[in-house]
Amino acid sequence: MHSEYGTALKISIFGESHGRAIGVNIDGLPAGEKIDMEELTQFMSRRRPGEGPFVTGRKETDATVFLSGVNDDETTGFPVCAVIENNDARPSDYAEQGLKPRPAHADFTARVKYGSRADMRGGGHFSGRLTAPLCVAGGIAIQMLKRRGIGVGAHLLSVGRVQGEPFPIFPTFELFSDIFSRQIPTLCEKTEKMMVTEIETAAKDLDSVGGVIECAVIGVPAGLGGPMFGGVEGRLSQALFGVPGIKGVDFGAGFNGTFMRGSLHNDPFTALNGNVMTKTNNHGGILGGISSGMPILFRAAVKPTPSIGIKQKTVDLETMSSAEIEVKGRHDPCIALRAVPVIEAAAAVCILDILLEECLIWNSLR
Amino acid sequence: MHSEYGTALKISIFGESHGRAIGVNIDGLPAGEKIDMEELTQFMSRRRPGEGPFVTGRKETDATVFLSGVNDDETTGFPVCAVIENNDARPSDYAEQGLKPRPAHADFTARVKYGSRADMRGGGHFSGRLTAPLCVAGGIAIQMLKRRGIGVGAHLLSVGRVQGEPFPIFPTFELFSDIFSRQIPTLCEKTEKMMVTEIETAAKDLDSVGGVIECAVIGVPAGLGGPMFGGVEGRLSQALFGVPGIKGVDFGAGFNGTFMRGSLHNDPFTALNGNVMTKTNNHGGILGGISSGMPILFRAAVKPTPSIGIKQKTVDLETMSSAEIEVKGRHDPCIALRAVPVIEAAAAVCILDILLEECLIWNSLR
Amino acid sequence: MHSEYGTALKISIFGESHGRAIGVNIDGLPAGEKIDMEELTQFMSRRRPGEGPFVTGRKETDATVFLSGVNDDETTGFPVCAVIENNDARPSDYAEQGLKPRPAHADFTARVKYGSRADMRGGGHFSGRLTAPLCVAGGIAIQMLKRRGIGVGAHLLSVGRVQGEPFPIFPTFELFSDIFSRQIPTLCEKTEKMMVTEIETAAKDLDSVGGVIECAVIGVPAGLGGPMFGGVEGRLSQALFGVPGIKGVDFGAGFNGTFMRGSLHNDPFTALNGNVMTKTNNHGGILGGISSGMPILFRAAVKPTPSIGIKQKTVDLETMSSAEIEVKGRHDPCIALRAVPVIEAAAAVCILDILLEECLIWNSLR
Amino acid sequence: MHSEYGTALKISIFGESHGRAIGVNIDGLPAGEKIDMEELTQFMSRRRPGEGPFVTGRKETDATVFLSGVNDDETTGFPVCAVIENNDARPSDYAEQGLKPRPAHADFTARVKYGSRADMRGGGHFSGRLTAPLCVAGGIAIQMLKRRGIGVGAHLLSVGRVQGEPFPIFPTFELFSDIFSRQIPTLCEKTEKMMVTEIETAAKDLDSVGGVIECAVIGVPAGLGGPMFGGVEGRLSQALFGVPGIKGVDFGAGFNGTFMRGSLHNDPFTALNGNVMTKTNNHGGILGGISSGMPILFRAAVKPTPSIGIKQKTVDLETMSSAEIEVKGRHDPCIALRAVPVIEAAAAVCILDILLEECLIWNSLR
Repeated sequence: MHSEYGTALKISIFGESHGRAIGVNIDGLPAGEKIDMEELTQFMSRRRPGEGPFVTGRKETDATVFLSGVNDDETTGFPVCAVIENNDARPSDYAEQGLKPRPAHADFTARVKYGSRADMRGGGHFSGRLTAPLCVAGGIAIQMLKRRGIGVGAHLLSVGRVQGEPFPIFPTFELFSDIFSRQIPTLCEKTEKMMVTEIETAAKDLDSVGGVIECAVIGVPAGLGGPMFGGVEGRLSQALFGVPGIKGVDFGAGFNGTFMRGSLHNDPFTALNGNVMTKTNNHGGILGGISSGMPILFRAAVKPTPSIGIKQKTVDLETMSSAEIEVKGRHDPCIALRAVPVIEAAAAVCILDILLEECLIWNSLR
Repeated sequence: MHSEYGTALKISIFGESHGRAIGVNIDGLPAGEKIDMEELTQFMSRRRPGEGPFVTGRKETDATVFLSGVNDDETTGFPVCAVIENNDARPSDYAEQGLKPRPAHADFTARVKYGSRADMRGGGHFSGRLTAPLCVAGGIAIQMLKRRGIGVGAHLLSVGRVQGEPFPIFPTFELFSDIFSRQIPTLCEKTEKMMVTEIETAAKDLDSVGGVIECAVIGVPAGLGGPMFGGVEGRLSQALFGVPGIKGVDFGAGFNGTFMRGSLHNDPFTALNGNVMTKTNNHGGILGGISSGMPILFRAAVKPTPSIGIKQKTVDLETMSSAEIEVKGRHDPCIALRAVPVIEAAAAVCILDILLEECLIWNSLR
Repeated sequence: MHSEYGTALKISIFGESHGRAIGVNIDGLPAGEKIDMEELTQFMSRRRPGEGPFVTGRKETDATVFLSGVNDDETTGFPVCAVIENNDARPSDYAEQGLKPRPAHADFTARVKYGSRADMRGGGHFSGRLTAPLCVAGGIAIQMLKRRGIGVGAHLLSVGRVQGEPFPIFPTFELFSDIFSRQIPTLCEKTEKMMVTEIETAAKDLDSVGGVIECAVIGVPAGLGGPMFGGVEGRLSQALFGVPGIKGVDFGAGFNGTFMRGSLHNDPFTALNGNVMTKTNNHGGILGGISSGMPILFRAAVKPTPSIGIKQKTVDLETMSSAEIEVKGRHDPCIALRAVPVIEAAAAVCILDILLEECLIWNSLR
Repeated sequence: MHSEYGTALKISIFGESHGRAIGVNIDGLPAGEKIDMEELTQFMSRRRPGEGPFVTGRKETDATVFLSGVNDDETTGFPVCAVIENNDARPSDYAEQGLKPRPAHADFTARVKYGSRADMRGGGHFSGRLTAPLCVAGGIAIQMLKRRGIGVGAHLLSVGRVQGEPFPIFPTFELFSDIFSRQIPTLCEKTEKMMVTEIETAAKDLDSVGGVIECAVIGVPAGLGGPMFGGVEGRLSQALFGVPGIKGVDFGAGFNGTFMRGSLHNDPFTALNGNVMTKTNNHGGILGGISSGMPILFRAAVKPTPSIGIKQKTVDLETMSSAEIEVKGRHDPCIALRAVPVIEAAAAVCILDILLEECLIWNSLR
């Protein structure tokens, strides 16, 4: 299924950017898990447009309503359906775009697959807005993981050509808090300013920039996952590529690791206080598809916002002749910015899913 | 399930490197598909150790025996179980390694998960040898796709620090044949020589190198896949990360695309002979998770061979004290070399799986 | 997952009988399918309490709101989320029941599994009310199937000890319409009256009765399904046992067929106008798990309504001592009555799911 | 997938009755489970043809070879592939049958679905012989369950018109042993003789009889399963309908329960030694889809052996004219007999699958 993810924890995302509501159905949450609604709202707000300086003027309150599965802010053990109403949509902004597919958008491919019936105003089901329900599921997952000592945090490693510092070998909950408190979620103040400039310049040019998000999951016990297609890397990557705009994912040293010799890349094992660890983390916390107990570390490549103010070349599908298009509406010059909590959400849903499958370990964490 | 992949076409891989046999069960192949056994053997030989100059001295004949689902070299429509016997294993090479986990291998994580019962000699179920049954499934898929105009080809884009040329915007079946005929599957002769030197030098140093494989799937019709978690990127990446040693996957411009501005990254649509195409292929043939009709293009990062001759630091799990290990046995200095057909196999299985999902009887009822 | 069904068409049901809303998320509906909302409402009304003489006084308007996936009464190709608000719930009716599990209800088993957090007022997620969203999905499926010549119809074969007539060998759309127009969905008027009496008598005694529903799916092409666990029987039965109160399912001659000799049970093949058919239908339209082109015919056993007015013995879970319970609230004396359209809905969802699995683009490539 | 079953424990069955080998791949067995090979062989022999007086003369040694996942008779935690070679096949017996589909067999439906390529000699993948690998998986599951106090036993409740005694409310391991030691697995000696006569008479007439198998799973903890489509009934029935020849399944009082009033059918709860139980077991150990702690009790209807010596009417698919067929080969007059251990196997695989999903409970059983 297209808009569904997970095995023990199954999330099904529904909605179109300009339909009645968007939402998520979450099946598999154990009974008796408290949801801190304020914390959830805070987490959601990190993704929300209308917050921060470089984000679309479009206001989405993203008020989440739980239709089922939650009683007195506690899970009942039954499917949790959460919805967010769409109330600030302006379909007219998208009206004329009609048969001229926007470059780098799903307009063309959706038309081939679904025909003219797909309600593609504002991206329809392909809209970045659909990451809001993912953040509802992810926000709940993050709270459940945190209670068991597992933390999920991400930051902007790069924006366009501006490269930031990577995570230290052992990121902490405190470090995650620091990042979230910044205007731009990055590790150092100096980079932050350069990133601001990079984005501002692109925006002034009616253009956009991409970025790379680095994410760490700390406190994951060793032994999660499995060989081959059930490996943590594969399962995580399927969740991550489910986020619109993600075009690459690598773990540990990843693509850079291909330049290393084995003698450098291989992380030596060492014992500390009775725990086996590695001195470096080129393996990104996963060996043979199974978590090693080291932080799970990965990067996600976010493409430049496809919606730009500059006039672009396309095809008129009716006449099959060349055409030009100016993408109207309100758009971020850098979607990577708002994608940071979305990547955390996707990672949290995946790790919780894997944990719930191996409830033996899950139970030992209580 | 860990060793299983696919939806409409389901492959289940079994076996340990030093058990009785390894193999694959393939459920979902339509009836009446011819299998050219010679072509399959040829494809398998591209992965096989003991072929080529830089590969392990270990001889695996990899003779595939079809236990079911094939009659007169034609599929019957029922599950195809194919096995390859293990007959050149030398468990003694691995005997002493015991409780000292090899760095960058699954020894430690498998022990945490499966305990001492896991038969980890030679990597057990985590061994690269398990890619042979994947190549059986992939080899069959490649033949079925080819009959329908879809081609799958890959090459070494880089080995260690040696960077080769990328695919042209429209790779062809002929180009794929050229690549396969070389000693090292790469696009130009000059690069080939430099790669040979890079590998030879590492081998001389008892060390290893990584590499990046670029893969293209040509002739894929537009409209395959879907939004969110059902996107082609997510499904492909899950197949790819199922291959041991893969630590990164990106599509189209991928990580490099994050440096671009949107105005450069967005591929303009154009019409050619009634077909909609794009002038560039930064989107890697996939928009909104759905194939665009352009070649599907991706890269896979292969880590340096973890087994190296150099002495390495590790931990003795019994005493929990520092230890050293020398990995014996026969090993390739660059597994990326042999991973090329494996990546093709994984890609072919994924694309065939997606294709088989779309609707026939349903359509006949309209 | 517990509240999810299907492969190509996936339905996820959510909600508790006394929560905010109940609903269903349907992923996999093709784009461009018209939904006749009036017809859907009519179908829903056949299941609704407060309709007909023997059904609970509880009024549920069951107004279905489509949050996503439907535009101008047409599917968009994206997940369809439909919700029904709960507005006539009276939790107080259920308040005192507390720790005394009602016999033949899920109170005890749900408590063991979910603990005290499960919101079990009125049955919670186990309530028969959850069949309303199943009917939304089923009602849409029935319309889609009908457009392709496939009909789904069911009737009460028996109520308590009153046995009705079975379907003729070839049920028709007209016959289905006749059944639906009756007060009690059964094949003959005489039986109808006896069934009325059977139910009235039980109701007067504050007791309840069970029943058997016979269902036929006509117009199904031969060739759907497959051997072993993918057979139509297994897939249908999983859908049917998902309906609360169903305790048995058999196909064709079913349990009665075990009394027959093979020479009588085996349905002889015959050719009529170029079509292969069978003279009898003891196989219930399914051979080797695959549809034969004959009507798919099955029966579902519905247990007597567990909620009865008579005082019953149970256990007080707090004191672990014997206790008595009087089940209050409004209840039907025979749930089989209202289960008839639910069985149709479950069958339609299953058959549509199987149909949607077969191949389109694949075929176009041959 | 057609020949696959399970979630946490996944079995994939492959092979054709006259191919090279049949077998099963089992993914999800935990590491360190001992397999008593003698006990497994004994279990397999209960299903084997050539044993007992009323079974086909065909000799199948059914020697199981483990290709992977088992080391020193202990599971390694990786996929277990077990194969059984076909060595007593006589394809010529089936040669002429060609285009005249045998009544009540899958010949016709398989042809429609798979075309002429399906190797249908002797039933191909639809053959009852494919239940042998199911028994390998089931036999292992039964051993694993037994170590945790869970027993699975079945008997012939009826053969043709001969009705035997049902299980007592609490069947025991001893009772199961008694049954298995009889020539015909049934509860009382008197019935046994009548069943022998019933089968002998049918055999003399070149005809066949059906039967009903009753199966109990004892020692199952309360709390397994879940509401709606994840209920134990639905999951069990999908496994059971995967067995060729099964045409009906009911739980507890099942179809007979529809004749009861609720006041009789509802099982009163009672407390015994701190355990909650029910005084009767009309619910068959499952309430709201969840196990209650009472024995899980169900019946499976087995149709009369379709292969009979009597001449039968069919259609010649080439000429589309009436034809007659005499089914040659060696066949049992009552497949229900040999289906008894197969039903146990299917039930054991299902219950183990559910248990492994809820490893919390699984763990508490160690």
